[in-house]
Amino acid sequence: MKTHLDCFPCFLRQTLIAVRLGTKNETLQAEVLKGVMDEIKATDMSQPPAYSTTFLHRKIRQLLGKDPFREIKSEYNQIALGLYPELKKKVESSRDPLWTAARLAIAGNVIDFGIFTSVDIIGTIEKALHSPITIDEYKTFKDALDKHTEIFYLLDNAGEILFDRILIEVLTGMGKKVKAVVKGQPVLNDSTIEDAEEVGLTDVCEIIDNGSDCIGTILEFSSPEFNSEFRNAGFIISKGQGNFETVYIPEIIGTRDIFFLFQSKCDVVSKELGLSKGSMLLMARDYKTL
Amino acid sequence: MKTHLDCFPCFLRQTLIAVRLGTKNETLQAEVLKGVMDEIKATDMSQPPAYSTTFLHRKIRQLLGKDPFREIKSEYNQIALGLYPELKKKVESSRDPLWTAARLAIAGNVIDFGIFTSVDIIGTIEKALHSPITIDEYKTFKDALDKHTEIFYLLDNAGEILFDRILIEVLTGMGKKVKAVVKGQPVLNDSTIEDAEEVGLTDVCEIIDNGSDCIGTILEFSSPEFNSEFRNAGFIISKGQGNFETVYIPEIIGTRDIFFLFQSKCDVVSKELGLSKGSMLLMARDYKTL
Repeated sequence: MKTHLDCFPCFLRQTLIAVRLGTKNETLQAEVLKGVMDEIKATDMSQPPAYSTTFLHRKIRQLLGKDPFREIKSEYNQIALGLYPELKKKVESSRDPLWTAARLAIAGNVIDFGIFTSVDIIGTIEKALHSPITIDEYKTFKDALDKHTEIFYLLDNAGEILFDRILIEVLTGMGKKVKAVVKGQPVLNDSTIEDAEEVGLTDVCEIIDNGSDCIGTILEFSSPEFNSEFRNAGFIISKGQGNFETVYIPEIIGTRDIFFLFQSKCDVVSKELGLSKGSMLLMARDYKTL
Repeated sequence: MKTHLDCFPCFLRQTLIAVRLGTKNETLQAEVLKGVMDEIKATDMSQPPAYSTTFLHRKIRQLLGKDPFREIKSEYNQIALGLYPELKKKVESSRDPLWTAARLAIAGNVIDFGIFTSVDIIGTIEKALHSPITIDEYKTFKDALDKHTEIFYLLDNAGEILFDRILIEVLTGMGKKVKAVVKGQPVLNDSTIEDAEEVGLTDVCEIIDNGSDCIGTILEFSSPEFNSEFRNAGFIISKGQGNFETVYIPEIIGTRDIFFLFQSKCDVVSKELGLSKGSMLLMARDYKTL
């Protein structure tokens, strides 16, 4: 997808969230806010918003001299870890553990303090488990899964990654070999290897990083090793809006099986999909245009 | 009041409203949006937001090569004129026409398509007339009015200016001499002499302009003639948030009687006042800090 004009105010809104997490110094906050104007001015409208926000967050970290999300990422990992026993029980006692775990993985995507400042985790979990989701291609997902043993899993946010762990545990329990992808360097609230370790995901499956600090999955910014792995992946689970923005492109998807699990968090992406904001999706590759 | 960090995303949101009114050409829309970044970067945080948005809208008009609000201003003047007979009847048949007209003038302030893209005019009028307003110093207003024959009236938006006409008609009917102030040049949806003519206000009272394209009333940008008139005014009615931002300053108000009639339309101003967004106010000069 392309960048819309409505993304511009949101770029500044995101910057504001980041600087307030990064420093209490109001002069520095204003400096960073003004300091990203050139990045916003340089926005390439033909690229997805995640492309611009990659540069934006790089600049924010540079001006702050730190990763503003490190602490809150740990905090959300810990909150999520606290929910683990209960969530695990929900999955194991359910009629279809794969269904339940997939729903939880979508619910976990709501834990995105990079865009929202507060979330109702428990309420969202209940909603994801008990309400119909807007695009629900679970049957296609399950059928496609039967044809593959190797799964390439694009992770998204810290906190959320614990919910991914639960889905990955179900998948490995089904005999699947999962390779999960974190970011090579910190960016926004996206998971890095530290987050995977913090929620115990490193004990569950192989973790690789994409060698990049990009938001979503931007192949040209990612390492040759990651590009090679991505190219060969036959079955992909793509988590979150950033990955949707950057991967949901016919030339990138090709003919393989890919499923997008996320919540549409902004007006621009929701409009692109013809859905209302806040919609939860388990969407196959061939939805609409593809 | 000072500019807050939260004003920055709003600066871009306002720009977006203006460019979409000004052109359907998406390339030009993006150019203007990017073209205001330097103005936003130059924001003087010690000044009110209206100070920065004055420069912002100047740049928008320059880049568009036109005033993007001219047509919609006329449209809202016409909508308001259509309501005139009914509003006039409401005022004349009411127990206290001054009270009713003052309330309507506050309701009229909601007609602000520079900040919002749609408004519920009739609903707002009914709310203003039948619900308690948040800060209601009508008694002080009425008592102070008894001590003055000359009223200096800072107008705000097109459309709204018809509601001001109704209040001014009540004031002139009470034997008051009203001098109403429009902007010297177009800026945002603010009233200029064309708007005063369009709603028939030029037949009701003396109209002067402030010789400026500033948002609100910024004395350093206004003409010497206006500064002189403003300095000598003993009783001021100040309409709208822009005038509140720029005039509600102890050194500017001094000891005279001044009343602010407006709706707090954004989080920043509402927070400044300790009120919730959307609050309607008829506020005397000595509220809180002054």
